Amino acid sequence: MKAIINVYLKEGVLDPQGKAVHHALGSLGFNNVKEVRIGKQIVLELDETDREKAMKELKEMAETLLANTVIEDYDIEIAE
Amino acid sequence: MKAIINVYLKEGVLDPQGKAVHHALGSLGFNNVKEVRIGKQIVLELDETDREKAMKELKEMAETLLANTVIEDYDIEIAE
Repeated sequence: MKAIINVYLKEGVLDPQGKAVHHALGSLGFNNVKEVRIGKQIVLELDETDREKAMKELKEMAETLLANTVIEDYDIEIAE
Repeated sequence: MKAIINVYLKEGVLDPQGKAVHHALGSLGFNNVKEVRIGKQIVLELDETDREKAMKELKEMAETLLANTVIEDYDIEIAE
């Protein structure tokens, strides 16, 4: 089973990496970019067939390791 | 217009970050994870209403700055 966890900074948290990319895009002539936010996309291959069990485990993984829940949010997709 | 560009290592390219996360998940007791791959999710807010023009520009941004196309692939989603 393939799952995707997207981890991204919470609204209002400064994103210096996003700012740097935004600035670089501007200097390359891409002038209609209003904002850039950068997050992590974590793709996992799981040895699990039960979707509910997988979702529960993925949530635990996100909460304990993959996301810093003080400044980051995450969403979970089970691909197939 | 909101767009998302996912940038991720090509198949076969070693992902040390993914390996480290895989190892850490194992030591936390998540034993049914077969593989972990980590990519970047870049969320852009564009001052553009024409989808085709936006897609063309996003492709250019990915090719020129956001992805290292030697080792990375990318996909583009226009959210709204």
